[in-house]
Amino acid sequence: MNAATPRRLVILTEGQWHVHNAKTAMGVIRYGPDHVVALLDSTIAGRSVAEWMPGHDIPIVASIGRALVLPERPDTLLIGIAPTGGKLPPAWRATILEAIRAGLNVHSGLHTFLGDDPELAAAAAAAGVELVDYRRAPERMETAVGRRHKPGSRVILTVGTDCAIGKMSVALELRRSALAAGDAAVFVPTGQTGMMIDGWGVAVDRVISDFVQGTVEWMLEEGETRGDWLIVEGQGSLDHPAYSSVTLGLIHGATPHAMVMVHKPGMAEHDFDHLPDASFPIARLPDFIRLHESVAGLVAPSKVVGIALNTSLYPDAAETRRIVEQIEAETGLPTADPVRFGADRLWREIRAAVEDLPWVRENDARAAG
Amino acid sequence: MNAATPRRLVILTEGQWHVHNAKTAMGVIRYGPDHVVALLDSTIAGRSVAEWMPGHDIPIVASIGRALVLPERPDTLLIGIAPTGGKLPPAWRATILEAIRAGLNVHSGLHTFLGDDPELAAAAAAAGVELVDYRRAPERMETAVGRRHKPGSRVILTVGTDCAIGKMSVALELRRSALAAGDAAVFVPTGQTGMMIDGWGVAVDRVISDFVQGTVEWMLEEGETRGDWLIVEGQGSLDHPAYSSVTLGLIHGATPHAMVMVHKPGMAEHDFDHLPDASFPIARLPDFIRLHESVAGLVAPSKVVGIALNTSLYPDAAETRRIVEQIEAETGLPTADPVRFGADRLWREIRAAVEDLPWVRENDARAAG
Repeated sequence: MNAATPRRLVILTEGQWHVHNAKTAMGVIRYGPDHVVALLDSTIAGRSVAEWMPGHDIPIVASIGRALVLPERPDTLLIGIAPTGGKLPPAWRATILEAIRAGLNVHSGLHTFLGDDPELAAAAAAAGVELVDYRRAPERMETAVGRRHKPGSRVILTVGTDCAIGKMSVALELRRSALAAGDAAVFVPTGQTGMMIDGWGVAVDRVISDFVQGTVEWMLEEGETRGDWLIVEGQGSLDHPAYSSVTLGLIHGATPHAMVMVHKPGMAEHDFDHLPDASFPIARLPDFIRLHESVAGLVAPSKVVGIALNTSLYPDAAETRRIVEQIEAETGLPTADPVRFGADRLWREIRAAVEDLPWVRENDARAAG
Repeated sequence: MNAATPRRLVILTEGQWHVHNAKTAMGVIRYGPDHVVALLDSTIAGRSVAEWMPGHDIPIVASIGRALVLPERPDTLLIGIAPTGGKLPPAWRATILEAIRAGLNVHSGLHTFLGDDPELAAAAAAAGVELVDYRRAPERMETAVGRRHKPGSRVILTVGTDCAIGKMSVALELRRSALAAGDAAVFVPTGQTGMMIDGWGVAVDRVISDFVQGTVEWMLEEGETRGDWLIVEGQGSLDHPAYSSVTLGLIHGATPHAMVMVHKPGMAEHDFDHLPDASFPIARLPDFIRLHESVAGLVAPSKVVGIALNTSLYPDAAETRRIVEQIEAETGLPTADPVRFGADRLWREIRAAVEDLPWVRENDARAAG
């Protein structure tokens, strides 16, 4: 999948924008190449995205009809949520049909494929618009073959203490800082939002489990043709009751030289739809870092070289500084909140640490295959 | 999927029986409820399965035609190999078509679904026979919800130091010994061979990765309606470059109270189709056991309570005894080769260790939900 020409998006988040689950919308607004014309959410219509994301003055409308009469007409409806399990909320069907009939393409990252829905597919055919399901896995079904990285390549994977805390954003911020520093950095998208932003990749959580590692290995091979520093978007967390297997598939499929641990201070428990009598606390960082290195090392050596914090629960700058210093002391690793304060310094420190890894230098010394 | 009436099988292993990959055939012959009329393998036609599996005097034939004229006519062709990636070798198509046209059902555990192949499906429809694809995943697409085990249940998962070394066989031998000891034991099949043998289950390596843990959790719920001691068939290994994510999905989806580590002494490297310049050594047991307990414990506490060896590389009984004693000393855990020598003693020791686990007693103390 390659980057398309910029679209004019209306992003559907109906009732989810200010609750949670709107990470797709936020990611596309913050990092995407497309112009976002409007957010579609009747529960907050009339307000602006800038109230939650300063600098993004995007109107919020109540209906497709309202979006169509904006000065700039949208050409695409993008489904902006990522609910647990990725199902299409039934209430959205009417909205999607309305968009199709108005001539909008519909782009979705849900597990429920719009293109496989007879009613939606028929409507799209009649209207001559495109339904794009980003989560549709490639036809290729291959297990991993133990491919080694091209000499000269450096592979960094973002891992984390929970899902939906910013592993994609951290990867994108690191790429931005790397490019600014003159490094040939590549973002490797492994989820639907990353794919919407960067125009290629595979949503690995949709891949048949036998082929997750083989698919990630193949994406890395593609990434190595695009640049030297591959920054791979992580998924889930190694201790997530529902998604840890996807996380491990990324760790063992990408065989990263180094990992960046993403962590959201102030979160006590994993945030997902679980039964009320179950409880899943967030891991303690130093032990969790060591465990990542042990588990990654079962296939190829790797080291956590930095901590990327999501300090969104701490608006106060002084308190945030204190937390950053505390975690830096606790882990002995460079620590920053890249989304809030930028990643330039973190990138410099990570970059130096990666260049210093013995297995990176050993791989460079191999004759190119 | 429920157990069908016993079938009369001819098992296809063409060229693979005495090489490798015939683990499906061997499992079905050793543990299945069906009558195996013949093995179909032209490279060893005229010989008997008993040469490799004493006690199983099954003729080996060169063609479907030869199988059809045996005193007992087969009613089903079963694909008896599990190649890497699960693809249908093109050379077998003619054999499968011949079987279909002769009125045989065809049962397969390949990733390539016979039922989705237009030529095979049309032939089956014309002949009025059934094509069964054991690896077809259930329609249900649900992520894990953190379900806790029913009070009174005990869950044991077989894990291992490699794939294809006997995790399924060990689970079946443990069930056999448990039933003989009067325990209400249930085998939970997680792969196509286990499903062929026990008539239910899901091939988890075929499930979309986002739903692996949710699917395993759901299988456990079903298993708990069938008995108290759930012995879950493991898959892959936690350090397998291609399959570890499936393994972790089982560990975190089944949240076993205890694990039994399956190990094949004498194996130096992981046995799978990898690139020639890669090398993946087999893990050292004590470290690997501790790592399993740490990784499982990220979601729910678990302990490795026994070692099941596959001593097939050591025909000499005295040498085997020495290896068992050495591994028992090294790990401090009860150790046996259940397939070769039976699992009765191992089951008694495992059973006692599981009953003693604090988290088992805590779960029993919960009010039944």
